[in-house]
Amino acid sequence: MLYVVGVGAAKGYLTDKAKQIISKADVVYGSKRAIEYAEEFIRGEIRVLKKFGREVYDEIERVAKEKNVVVLSTGDPMVSGLGKKINGIVEPGISSVQLALARLKLDLCEVVVVDSHGKNSYDEIEKALEFRGKVLVLADKNFDPSKVRGKVTVLENLGLENERIGEEIKSDLAIVYIER
Amino acid sequence: MLYVVGVGAAKGYLTDKAKQIISKADVVYGSKRAIEYAEEFIRGEIRVLKKFGREVYDEIERVAKEKNVVVLSTGDPMVSGLGKKINGIVEPGISSVQLALARLKLDLCEVVVVDSHGKNSYDEIEKALEFRGKVLVLADKNFDPSKVRGKVTVLENLGLENERIGEEIKSDLAIVYIER
Repeated sequence: MLYVVGVGAAKGYLTDKAKQIISKADVVYGSKRAIEYAEEFIRGEIRVLKKFGREVYDEIERVAKEKNVVVLSTGDPMVSGLGKKINGIVEPGISSVQLALARLKLDLCEVVVVDSHGKNSYDEIEKALEFRGKVLVLADKNFDPSKVRGKVTVLENLGLENERIGEEIKSDLAIVYIER
Repeated sequence: MLYVVGVGAAKGYLTDKAKQIISKADVVYGSKRAIEYAEEFIRGEIRVLKKFGREVYDEIERVAKEKNVVVLSTGDPMVSGLGKKINGIVEPGISSVQLALARLKLDLCEVVVVDSHGKNSYDEIEKALEFRGKVLVLADKNFDPSKVRGKVTVLENLGLENERIGEEIKSDLAIVYIER
């Protein structure tokens, strides 16, 4: 059995359903941060993931043929997460997109969410702004806000102690809100 | 103090953060269903909401000037929820949109979410399909899938025992996935 479980954007966001699935696993994979958020509910073996990619996912899927395996995903596995990459049952978690919507008091049904990690997404953002005028971009430090037309707000470290709302991107875990 | 707290799409989806906020409230408002999901964590007075609307929200905001108030919202308050309607701090919850994405193995960054409750949204859906080709519609029984061009999948009662994936809409809590 193979589950991909969202642990939320910070500590304290785990649901009871997620805790239950995690506690039943023989082996739990996850980044250092994801393991940290879920650690008190893990009963099986912990395997910290230091790299990600097809080879790693193939190995996990192989192990899951014989054992009860959970792969932890920070935030929600279906928000630029591991859900599409690993062939398992997905259990949702609270994503930083939800925290951004909560802080900005925006409804998901009035925005478009664009993933800009490791790719050029300015064309997609322009089309999204033409369609709805309100766009949330999952961005890293390479994102250049001067390349989009609209009012820009940067939200960083959402849910963490150093949560920050401003105009500059300082981390690789930023959400950029653009309104036009 | 006034909080709008997401209790998730079904029982078992409450986060620790949400439980903590709920347990500190003097007064907790919510629909019968929302109260049911959160009941074991409520220490204060329960006020079941039977109708919704500006008048009710004004009254809640008035009470919150003197007491610690929580308004429960099924799913996530920022997904066609109470978050935009009530002037309080929003705490996210797991929405049925997230469960739909998990079941369909779709990423939030490849879809558009459209609210079709109590309104004609066919034009918006057409534009969303032209933009991204993959649309999730929050729909009720009045929604007519024959009015959209694309492959339709209906997901109902997500997270509940009678969860169902099919082609017909039988409830007012449906998510319709359209792909083109």
